Amino acid sequence: MALEDVLEAYKNGQIELNEALTGIRGAYFEDIGHTIVDHDRERRTGAGEVVFGSGKSAAQISDIVATLVANEANVLVTRLEPEKHAALTDLPNNAVYHADAQLLIWHAKPPAPLPHPIAVVTAGTSDINVAEEAALTAEFYGNQVSRIFDVGVAGLHRILARLDELRQARVLVVVAGMEGALPSVVGGLVERPVIAVPTSVGYGAAFDGVAAMLGMLTSCASGVSVVNIDNGFGAGFLANSINRL
Amino acid sequence: MALEDVLEAYKNGQIELNEALTGIRGAYFEDIGHTIVDHDRERRTGAGEVVFGSGKSAAQISDIVATLVANEANVLVTRLEPEKHAALTDLPNNAVYHADAQLLIWHAKPPAPLPHPIAVVTAGTSDINVAEEAALTAEFYGNQVSRIFDVGVAGLHRILARLDELRQARVLVVVAGMEGALPSVVGGLVERPVIAVPTSVGYGAAFDGVAAMLGMLTSCASGVSVVNIDNGFGAGFLANSINRL
Amino acid sequence: MALEDVLEAYKNGQIELNEALTGIRGAYFEDIGHTIVDHDRERRTGAGEVVFGSGKSAAQISDIVATLVANEANVLVTRLEPEKHAALTDLPNNAVYHADAQLLIWHAKPPAPLPHPIAVVTAGTSDINVAEEAALTAEFYGNQVSRIFDVGVAGLHRILARLDELRQARVLVVVAGMEGALPSVVGGLVERPVIAVPTSVGYGAAFDGVAAMLGMLTSCASGVSVVNIDNGFGAGFLANSINRL
Amino acid sequence: MALEDVLEAYKNGQIELNEALTGIRGAYFEDIGHTIVDHDRERRTGAGEVVFGSGKSAAQISDIVATLVANEANVLVTRLEPEKHAALTDLPNNAVYHADAQLLIWHAKPPAPLPHPIAVVTAGTSDINVAEEAALTAEFYGNQVSRIFDVGVAGLHRILARLDELRQARVLVVVAGMEGALPSVVGGLVERPVIAVPTSVGYGAAFDGVAAMLGMLTSCASGVSVVNIDNGFGAGFLANSINRL
Amino acid sequence: MALEDVLEAYKNGQIELNEALTGIRGAYFEDIGHTIVDHDRERRTGAGEVVFGSGKSAAQISDIVATLVANEANVLVTRLEPEKHAALTDLPNNAVYHADAQLLIWHAKPPAPLPHPIAVVTAGTSDINVAEEAALTAEFYGNQVSRIFDVGVAGLHRILARLDELRQARVLVVVAGMEGALPSVVGGLVERPVIAVPTSVGYGAAFDGVAAMLGMLTSCASGVSVVNIDNGFGAGFLANSINRL
Amino acid sequence: MALEDVLEAYKNGQIELNEALTGIRGAYFEDIGHTIVDHDRERRTGAGEVVFGSGKSAAQISDIVATLVANEANVLVTRLEPEKHAALTDLPNNAVYHADAQLLIWHAKPPAPLPHPIAVVTAGTSDINVAEEAALTAEFYGNQVSRIFDVGVAGLHRILARLDELRQARVLVVVAGMEGALPSVVGGLVERPVIAVPTSVGYGAAFDGVAAMLGMLTSCASGVSVVNIDNGFGAGFLANSINRL
Amino acid sequence: MALEDVLEAYKNGQIELNEALTGIRGAYFEDIGHTIVDHDRERRTGAGEVVFGSGKSAAQISDIVATLVANEANVLVTRLEPEKHAALTDLPNNAVYHADAQLLIWHAKPPAPLPHPIAVVTAGTSDINVAEEAALTAEFYGNQVSRIFDVGVAGLHRILARLDELRQARVLVVVAGMEGALPSVVGGLVERPVIAVPTSVGYGAAFDGVAAMLGMLTSCASGVSVVNIDNGFGAGFLANSINRL
Amino acid sequence: MALEDVLEAYKNGQIELNEALTGIRGAYFEDIGHTIVDHDRERRTGAGEVVFGSGKSAAQISDIVATLVANEANVLVTRLEPEKHAALTDLPNNAVYHADAQLLIWHAKPPAPLPHPIAVVTAGTSDINVAEEAALTAEFYGNQVSRIFDVGVAGLHRILARLDELRQARVLVVVAGMEGALPSVVGGLVERPVIAVPTSVGYGAAFDGVAAMLGMLTSCASGVSVVNIDNGFGAGFLANSINRL
Repeated sequence: MALEDVLEAYKNGQIELNEALTGIRGAYFEDIGHTIVDHDRERRTGAGEVVFGSGKSAAQISDIVATLVANEANVLVTRLEPEKHAALTDLPNNAVYHADAQLLIWHAKPPAPLPHPIAVVTAGTSDINVAEEAALTAEFYGNQVSRIFDVGVAGLHRILARLDELRQARVLVVVAGMEGALPSVVGGLVERPVIAVPTSVGYGAAFDGVAAMLGMLTSCASGVSVVNIDNGFGAGFLANSINRL
Repeated sequence: MALEDVLEAYKNGQIELNEALTGIRGAYFEDIGHTIVDHDRERRTGAGEVVFGSGKSAAQISDIVATLVANEANVLVTRLEPEKHAALTDLPNNAVYHADAQLLIWHAKPPAPLPHPIAVVTAGTSDINVAEEAALTAEFYGNQVSRIFDVGVAGLHRILARLDELRQARVLVVVAGMEGALPSVVGGLVERPVIAVPTSVGYGAAFDGVAAMLGMLTSCASGVSVVNIDNGFGAGFLANSINRL
Repeated sequence: MALEDVLEAYKNGQIELNEALTGIRGAYFEDIGHTIVDHDRERRTGAGEVVFGSGKSAAQISDIVATLVANEANVLVTRLEPEKHAALTDLPNNAVYHADAQLLIWHAKPPAPLPHPIAVVTAGTSDINVAEEAALTAEFYGNQVSRIFDVGVAGLHRILARLDELRQARVLVVVAGMEGALPSVVGGLVERPVIAVPTSVGYGAAFDGVAAMLGMLTSCASGVSVVNIDNGFGAGFLANSINRL
Repeated sequence: MALEDVLEAYKNGQIELNEALTGIRGAYFEDIGHTIVDHDRERRTGAGEVVFGSGKSAAQISDIVATLVANEANVLVTRLEPEKHAALTDLPNNAVYHADAQLLIWHAKPPAPLPHPIAVVTAGTSDINVAEEAALTAEFYGNQVSRIFDVGVAGLHRILARLDELRQARVLVVVAGMEGALPSVVGGLVERPVIAVPTSVGYGAAFDGVAAMLGMLTSCASGVSVVNIDNGFGAGFLANSINRL
Repeated sequence: MALEDVLEAYKNGQIELNEALTGIRGAYFEDIGHTIVDHDRERRTGAGEVVFGSGKSAAQISDIVATLVANEANVLVTRLEPEKHAALTDLPNNAVYHADAQLLIWHAKPPAPLPHPIAVVTAGTSDINVAEEAALTAEFYGNQVSRIFDVGVAGLHRILARLDELRQARVLVVVAGMEGALPSVVGGLVERPVIAVPTSVGYGAAFDGVAAMLGMLTSCASGVSVVNIDNGFGAGFLANSINRL
Repeated sequence: MALEDVLEAYKNGQIELNEALTGIRGAYFEDIGHTIVDHDRERRTGAGEVVFGSGKSAAQISDIVATLVANEANVLVTRLEPEKHAALTDLPNNAVYHADAQLLIWHAKPPAPLPHPIAVVTAGTSDINVAEEAALTAEFYGNQVSRIFDVGVAGLHRILARLDELRQARVLVVVAGMEGALPSVVGGLVERPVIAVPTSVGYGAAFDGVAAMLGMLTSCASGVSVVNIDNGFGAGFLANSINRL
Repeated sequence: MALEDVLEAYKNGQIELNEALTGIRGAYFEDIGHTIVDHDRERRTGAGEVVFGSGKSAAQISDIVATLVANEANVLVTRLEPEKHAALTDLPNNAVYHADAQLLIWHAKPPAPLPHPIAVVTAGTSDINVAEEAALTAEFYGNQVSRIFDVGVAGLHRILARLDELRQARVLVVVAGMEGALPSVVGGLVERPVIAVPTSVGYGAAFDGVAAMLGMLTSCASGVSVVNIDNGFGAGFLANSINRL
Repeated sequence: MALEDVLEAYKNGQIELNEALTGIRGAYFEDIGHTIVDHDRERRTGAGEVVFGSGKSAAQISDIVATLVANEANVLVTRLEPEKHAALTDLPNNAVYHADAQLLIWHAKPPAPLPHPIAVVTAGTSDINVAEEAALTAEFYGNQVSRIFDVGVAGLHRILARLDELRQARVLVVVAGMEGALPSVVGGLVERPVIAVPTSVGYGAAFDGVAAMLGMLTSCASGVSVVNIDNGFGAGFLANSINRL
């Protein structure tokens, strides 16, 4: 029973308050014990629920995925280590696991492709895993992704040589570790929103991504915002929500 | 002489390499001694140069503004304390100074209004100055702004009561100090991009905005990105660049 | 010989000062070499001594537990990893080990049940281990516990749907990682004391629970206090001491 | 019109949805431009809204106080510096300002006194201002307060000499700067809940209260929870909510 | 050739400047490739060179020990993990390894015993390994050590019951993790120098000993100084140098 | 009535328990409202109570000093800014104020001079204020002080030239800001205890003394312990307690 | 085709703009998928590209090395753990792997030796691995290196005895952990540039090299600059670029 | 009497040991009470002593300058605020004070000009004060300085347009606040040593220069080293010592 029907029935006196509340809850989400699966989220925020795999057991993730599959929702599990992926049960046959990006993806129905590309840019080779998490997330929601990798600021002509690709993108995800300077440079070259992703690449004073994060937050370029360290998923999700506007 | 003309003239042998380089530089920017005013920035990134007032003397700012005005560029000076504003010289008559947001605004030509509104939301009354910096910046570039103030999470019905306004916005700027929880709540209620602005409101373990900044970067809601502490300008600028897509 | 008797005997001159002091010491605690078991603690603070398992060897813990059992004291060992639990010796047969919460529990005499429930609330599924440490500790002391799990702020209707349960509790333990926003929301919905427990769930700028801890300490909701990161035991213990008032 | 009446009228078809929503909002709060005054808060959380004075202008505070007074709500303004207090307008005649604790207090109707005392304890003389903020807040809500000042751990007999007073309190607020050791000692002496307040007293490695805050969060005593640095109000508020159980 | 002889010979013209310099160097230390063994240190600072085992290979340590043994110097190797100890070669037969304190000790000639005892005190059982590093170091140099373990501040009568032993010590080493409050309490009870050793015992906001370290540095008790986290050796060494005065 | 007399009277039944407790309290300390003056401290810890001036009002300090003077105790007030000193009332005529060290000193009876000197050493000229706080404190308790100033490690011959003076001292207080390297060098040159005092001299990465503090805590020299940043008093007090052994 | 030829051909109309751009790109770098190998770097910055091994897979490194070898460029791979080195494929036969310094080195053509030596100095034995990374990097570029190891400041005569060697070097790399005091001492003894390398040697308040890093940045000696913690490569590279002047 | 003469006289028996030591001390430095002026420093390190003005009184600085002038040494006083400069006495007539860079400069004899220029580069206008401190210091020692200001990375063509000037410099000082990205870009464009100076320009997550400092320490460009935040003097001094090679 849809939410509107519940409310209508309650107003008409066909159901009591308790029944109405139960109905409202059922339309919204499903409690499977350890987790409350949010079936309303897609309607409410435009994107289905994503399963954050870290800190959940394989059994818990298997339960959640099964519930989503049963509801014909698209499935995206993030931060899923290979060993945990190997321990999952009852996965749909055509679910795809990306080991480097630690993502599991399954589509009940593939999304319609979006017309404009998103660029995912990295400073170095070591940033690629996080970048792939962003790129695959964006593709999961139907975006085209232009990958521009290893164009860090210590060799400027590398990024300048890709200027056309950069400027064709409607949104840019820029992934960098160490001093995290690339978003500032990209932000000065394009007029589009730049989502900066600090990575934990580096050592010593890089402090597992803190140096890059602070550098991106204090960027002298305008139009740059920042997500958490190594949060490729968050950047890809946000890029999609911007690209859909 | 436009950049294309310089290149054409150089190719045709009408000018030497040195002249070409000088011409290219002139088309791009103007060196006024202490500062290089970037006349090409609007073409390159879609928004004219903004003057970051902090750390510049009144004389330096007056010079830069005069150069921009002479080029018929719109003028936005940020972080301009009242005393420094009072010491500026040669301002255009109709320049407007907003003391709370510490912004100086002058339009050579007002921008065409954008069709969709931006929402600027604050957790508390004390966050309003930063929020106004964001809102006025967005308006400077032609955006309509819906102000939704003092709707922090400790009284949820306040934010729930404004749900319609929240959902009508195409982009949302959410400004909060202390624990900075509001962007997580807003991010769970809307499907649009949320730009979170931590403020230095609070004391003790708020650490001048660090608690809010960390909270926003680690938000459990997707679709949220973060700018620097108290960076209302950055949020308004980015909201505009997203809203223009 | 009870403490009062010792003092009486000393005053009456039946024993010398040295004897009196020895007697006073014996009534209070027992020195088993590496550890001083505090038999007076229950009288003094209303709750028997708890064994903090971390950093103690299996042999040391076995000694302490044996001493407590010999004194017919209830036994609670916290932070006991499964391997260390497996290495304990001379445990009472009916001691129960909870692997997720890393607690060992044995009752000499079960406590009388308390009339009012405590609520233990989590933001996500990954916070459940810490929440169970709190819930089982509270139950160890005779409290009824209402578990409300996975109701984080990014999907507000989840917490709103459990409002009745929240409001029936006399004390609330709210467990959250990442940005730690849930205690602020709960604190705004109920009139009861809220004990916030930051967890180390999250990555990057979550800094192993620091972001949540700072967020909770700077909560805009009143009536919230905070215990150490991942300190489920401390929250459960305090909830019991409040619930006994 | 009370909330129940609004809902009844809506169900009966006497009013439309829009009217119902407006009515619900009105019953809950009042929007005075910069601030949303929460008239429902007392019903919802058991305590009227408190005005956090820091970061608000004298004019804004005057508006809020006037709105509260008009609603016959008791008034507590915190973090109100003397100069700002002097600039307030339209205060009720018998409003009382406490300069050291930076509190403004006015009662529409004095609360009924609570039967059990709260103890407010400080380590040193320099912690008294924060302690008074806690004590006056608790008294504002009707609690009796037992003040036990300057009993820090470097002279143990000072605290031991006040043991009876400590043990008569139903809740204890313990205020300390520097290393913040006093709550651990008090927590080992009493069986009641201890609310620890770190203060910014100290210099160097005290880091404006951080040393005390960390010390209290990692206290070896059970039954201790912590509020923000210098947050006397929060401790007094929570002590009241515990004492009312 | 002793240093005085070298200088005399140089002044008398019996040797050239280069020879003199070589002679001076030889009297002072011996270069064994990776390490310069300092044979002059005992004369210069009153205590023989100690080998900091961490970061050195088993082969390097074996070389250094052999050089010291050949010079009939007493040997103390600190931070020597059991595996590295097992890999050492050519140890004297009667060298003693203490696994908990991670010390290797060998005496060429036992030191004369000192008349006054040192007290080594711990807050908890988990602090004992660090305390043993301090106690064994002090004993290595000829001090008597009074061990007073597990007397943390949450059960004050434990420390009060040992007051006589505390006051008999000429120097006190106080070892504590978590909030590190014990040195403040001990410092208020005795008139002797207190050397505080923070330990990495604890979790969460204990930050691997930082909370204890800050607490000890900001202690409200006078007469307390602090060594590095877990630096039992440093405390024992300093206690000896004070006790020898 | 002395403490022994109180106990005797109680044992003999001449006084009741309540009277006995009151008598014991009176012998120990005196409650003057805001502060508890500890008259027993000198007996208990070997040094009279010191007044920490920071955070206390001039009126409070005047009260405490008057109470001490009335008891014929020597008086040392630390962290007393010139303005606060000027506001004190009822000071003894011959009290001496040291503006640089911010100390007020008055002797009821001068202490007997100690036979061995203490050295107070600074790295730079800017560290002298803190060094004087240490030196004057040590002199207050009867120590002779050898001042060795401006001998920082960037010009080693300066410290080497004073080697004799360094080695004549029985205890050394070494005061340094910036990188705080001097205690490591001094600790390698002498066999006596070294008390290191980090100062807040420096800028940028000196972080108000944190760099020096960390450097001193991790000193490669043995026999070095550390007090709080700028804590000259603590160093002087501890040097005295060591020198009295 | 060299860059100059491309430009000439374009100016002469022999090639179109697109061809010109492609040619320019080809002369500069080569895109091998995951990585862009920068063949122009040597011309641009005077030193060939170095492969930062950390975070790259063995397959990626093998690709890059093969590309460099095919271009007859000298090869230096840094931060190459032994296991990853073992997994590399297609290495030239005479490539040399240094396990302690974690460097792989292969010369297409050995560089001409430079006339002046560089000194690489360490405070302790545990700093040697980082020092070797610096020394071998400098040797890779043709520098002579004078190794002066284990001359930390706690035994000053060790460094003083090597003063001649120190002063013969044209540039000095000084490597130290713990408090990182050695560069300050060396900087006061020589007139040459000193490159300070903090190492992660130490524990507790050494914070994995942070104490040393802060100490070096705030050094009281002039002429000292700092590279990242454990960044022996960076120091060796910079020493070479200075030594080539 | 020169040092060699002292040694000769001692060897020849013309003077006693004590006289020799006094003579050696006198040749080296001069003790003026609060400060030891180091007359040997120029011989030892190639540059005369510089007076760090911060934390010294005007009287102390006047003393030191007078001593240097009397020795005909060139004078450089750094961190000299205008008020303190105004309070100096007995300055030579032609001493020059630079208010922005807070430097006082006086030459006994101007240094011979060096053949190669140093470049001093800034990211923004707000970094100029620190840059001038570096530039004037370098000029004080005889260097030519090429100033390249306001060429931050958000407008890359600004720095690219000055490439020739950058490449003509033998050493580069690059000054930047906020994210501090400019040294990475410059380091990738030139083959010369780059000295990076983080500035405290910026707000929020810039943390008074920490973000820039960390960014520079973790720069992906090789050949970059870092000095303390705002340490223009240190950079200019080091640039000179490199340029003299």
